[in-house]
Amino acid sequence: MTRVAIVGVAGRMGRTLVSALEQDAGATLAGGIVEPGSSLAGADIGELAGVGKRGVTAVDSLAAIVDDFDVLIDFTAPQVTLANLAFCAEHGKRMVIGTTGMSDDELAQLDSYRDRVPMVFAPNMSVGVNLTLKLLETAARALGDEGYDIEVIEAHHRHKVDAPSGTAIKMGEVVAESLNRTLKEHGVFERVGQCGPRTDKEIGFATVRAGDIVGEHTVMFATEGERIEITHKASSRMTFAKGAVRAARWVAGQECGRYDMQDVLALNG
Amino acid sequence: MTRVAIVGVAGRMGRTLVSALEQDAGATLAGGIVEPGSSLAGADIGELAGVGKRGVTAVDSLAAIVDDFDVLIDFTAPQVTLANLAFCAEHGKRMVIGTTGMSDDELAQLDSYRDRVPMVFAPNMSVGVNLTLKLLETAARALGDEGYDIEVIEAHHRHKVDAPSGTAIKMGEVVAESLNRTLKEHGVFERVGQCGPRTDKEIGFATVRAGDIVGEHTVMFATEGERIEITHKASSRMTFAKGAVRAARWVAGQECGRYDMQDVLALNG
Amino acid sequence: MTRVAIVGVAGRMGRTLVSALEQDAGATLAGGIVEPGSSLAGADIGELAGVGKRGVTAVDSLAAIVDDFDVLIDFTAPQVTLANLAFCAEHGKRMVIGTTGMSDDELAQLDSYRDRVPMVFAPNMSVGVNLTLKLLETAARALGDEGYDIEVIEAHHRHKVDAPSGTAIKMGEVVAESLNRTLKEHGVFERVGQCGPRTDKEIGFATVRAGDIVGEHTVMFATEGERIEITHKASSRMTFAKGAVRAARWVAGQECGRYDMQDVLALNG
Amino acid sequence: MTRVAIVGVAGRMGRTLVSALEQDAGATLAGGIVEPGSSLAGADIGELAGVGKRGVTAVDSLAAIVDDFDVLIDFTAPQVTLANLAFCAEHGKRMVIGTTGMSDDELAQLDSYRDRVPMVFAPNMSVGVNLTLKLLETAARALGDEGYDIEVIEAHHRHKVDAPSGTAIKMGEVVAESLNRTLKEHGVFERVGQCGPRTDKEIGFATVRAGDIVGEHTVMFATEGERIEITHKASSRMTFAKGAVRAARWVAGQECGRYDMQDVLALNG
Repeated sequence: MTRVAIVGVAGRMGRTLVSALEQDAGATLAGGIVEPGSSLAGADIGELAGVGKRGVTAVDSLAAIVDDFDVLIDFTAPQVTLANLAFCAEHGKRMVIGTTGMSDDELAQLDSYRDRVPMVFAPNMSVGVNLTLKLLETAARALGDEGYDIEVIEAHHRHKVDAPSGTAIKMGEVVAESLNRTLKEHGVFERVGQCGPRTDKEIGFATVRAGDIVGEHTVMFATEGERIEITHKASSRMTFAKGAVRAARWVAGQECGRYDMQDVLALNG
Repeated sequence: MTRVAIVGVAGRMGRTLVSALEQDAGATLAGGIVEPGSSLAGADIGELAGVGKRGVTAVDSLAAIVDDFDVLIDFTAPQVTLANLAFCAEHGKRMVIGTTGMSDDELAQLDSYRDRVPMVFAPNMSVGVNLTLKLLETAARALGDEGYDIEVIEAHHRHKVDAPSGTAIKMGEVVAESLNRTLKEHGVFERVGQCGPRTDKEIGFATVRAGDIVGEHTVMFATEGERIEITHKASSRMTFAKGAVRAARWVAGQECGRYDMQDVLALNG
Repeated sequence: MTRVAIVGVAGRMGRTLVSALEQDAGATLAGGIVEPGSSLAGADIGELAGVGKRGVTAVDSLAAIVDDFDVLIDFTAPQVTLANLAFCAEHGKRMVIGTTGMSDDELAQLDSYRDRVPMVFAPNMSVGVNLTLKLLETAARALGDEGYDIEVIEAHHRHKVDAPSGTAIKMGEVVAESLNRTLKEHGVFERVGQCGPRTDKEIGFATVRAGDIVGEHTVMFATEGERIEITHKASSRMTFAKGAVRAARWVAGQECGRYDMQDVLALNG
Repeated sequence: MTRVAIVGVAGRMGRTLVSALEQDAGATLAGGIVEPGSSLAGADIGELAGVGKRGVTAVDSLAAIVDDFDVLIDFTAPQVTLANLAFCAEHGKRMVIGTTGMSDDELAQLDSYRDRVPMVFAPNMSVGVNLTLKLLETAARALGDEGYDIEVIEAHHRHKVDAPSGTAIKMGEVVAESLNRTLKEHGVFERVGQCGPRTDKEIGFATVRAGDIVGEHTVMFATEGERIEITHKASSRMTFAKGAVRAARWVAGQECGRYDMQDVLALNG
């Protein structure tokens, strides 16, 4: 049984991680940290997450629970994560890190712990997204040169500021590489007005922004007579939380090193 | 029983019209025209359409079947259509016209027959598309000012040269008018790169081009917590052929005049 | 500005109602109740809901906030709701009630307050579901007798114990009534093995149960050549919370009486 | 360049095969057979298929074109196919056979030609369906035991007499085998009334019958937080025709033997 502690346990991602731990047979909730001075220190972590009293209390420093946990899950901010890495290196703990927005310098600092901490670091911990990339590679190799048109359609909530999504671009890149194409040459990111008929090798992107859509991606392979569509729909942070808990279970058995979700899911081979 | 003749009966649309007539209880196949000199003159129209021998033979002039039909369906080219209108005016026939690409001058000529021929003229005879426009108006009025984001997504085959489709733009216009907006001001036809969060009143368009997709349109109304989607999918020319046959039945009972599909479907009220 | 209090503010629905109030320009958070003895009494309601400190504290009795609110929103259990109705009748408050599972006797008790409390009582407060019912009526009337096959497809999470969903059945009933059919005679709830070709007037239902799907419903009208699909997708409790807040704003201006969401949305006409 | 002749070239499948040959760079139309006595003998095969005059005339016996073709494509009836196999064995030709409905005795007769004729025999020649089965195997192995619910949803036209479709059942079997389950034990083919919560290992099926839907299949893997959906949509007979032409090109280079589409697509490894 892997004992897991959570940084930022009162935040939305923290609460979701508590729910994911609740459902996992191989990992257990061992502790949680809130910001110093929060009115929620001392509250029951289960009640905070809306799953009922669990007898584990939120605290405001890692030191207070140092003997209670094996793996620390951290989806916070770069400087917070780096401080927690230093703590884990000193006390022989492991980490699962979903923090985004690191500068090159911060990434280098993170990487410098790879010999002292077993850690999984991944910008997208969704099991489904990582599997989808594998399926796209298989499909592209089987269909790509037999007259199938390839399109990537993605939809996200109204607050997203960039388009297409990073995941949509990643999907397009996986398809392009499987077919010896590049998005630079074959990616088509807009079609407006008299744009003419589609060319054979282009990879098209279409973007929808509306409401609270967490994230939906479809890659379509279409030819005369049929379509194959491979779709991923994220419905909540749980997709990332469950991936993180699966990573925590996995990293509990690893040597020091920096790993990603392809390692966790054994999809690299 | 409305007796219907078809111009261009050996072409793809002509054969589809024969199939649509086969299935209609209120109209019957009365004749069909092929181009002068075609090797298919004299062939059984049913066999041409792949529905089995029907005892009606393809001919190469309207004069040869002048006593056999009440309504002529014509999805051909502007000059052919205008010549057929002249024939129908002279012989007291009615017409259903799906011909596109008319110049202003040709449209004026067509319109000059409105006092001598009962005719339905419509660029899109699909019953479903015309109903969808009505549903969009209802939905936009109920939701538009309560924080629902509106997006139009359309997909068509690889040969289509313009984007978004004329039908997608028409759908956007119906929604915009219902909300006192305009596509000129609020239409967003591309999102690429750092385009920032969505604005409240924009109406977004996304375009897919792939394979043999006949035509799919979805209008999405999304807010936090829910989405309503209204979708039309054309699967074959039958959607236009069945609309044309329904129009033929309807126009058989009308006075001289120029009508559209909203009249046929009684959706104007 | 309508001042709203929430019963069960620490539960999942309660927190969602706080978020919905945050986003509404015409209503404001005025108080919230937790169960007597909860460790969360005294906590800041905003922090509980994960939206940040709001300066409104959770209490454990309505009496403590009797001067602070105009409308009480209650998605709890029958006996709790009836006790709250008595309190509101006594103190001139209004209610929005989303509580389900009432017995006939409890419904009669609830109804007995209609002359003393302005209340909206509805089992499904989603604006989108209520609009969808209206769209289905329009579509069924336009298409139903012209050879369109009608199917209802619904998908819900793995924990749902009945099939098809109550909302799917309601959608089927609306369509059936518009066409002078009945689900008793024309509803088809299973197709397994050699079931033969589809009959013209049947209304088919298909059910999916998987994962965490909050609730998705599609009604399809299909004929040769085209399909029209009207789809509602709930993505979170927010669809019900936002409907409840809209109802709270609306009921603040009504006389005593028992109303439903069709009244709130003015779709009854 | 593989020279291909088509049996039943005036039928719907025959015409579709002509269109598929038109689009293929590695195979060419070499001849076509119609039934003895058809009014279409002597017609230009290109005009019959609606692609324009091609200078190849329909005949009513294979003997008349024996020197013109290398591979014969046959989607007809068992006795016709067996007679054509005898002809091909005698004259050193190859065959692609999509004929269905063979009895055990007829299958044994067909099989007896495997040492004398190189032939591809497959009940479903769609490239996309065969690829989809491969993707399902990969996905099931990666997800199946990590709490993902699996559902198969299929939709077909109103005339289909059995449910679920043979292809849906095949998809379910591939998933089940990958997870050491069986459809006999874990397949759930109906959910009506108070059916209780979903069990972990069941594989659910949902069926839609409406309009002219050629064939749509989706397999959904859903858990809390995400869904992966793998979808195949057939839009016309072209999916089978193109698979048959691809098989014709492939079989032109093979030794005598009986092959299937997995061989043609090299997906067996």
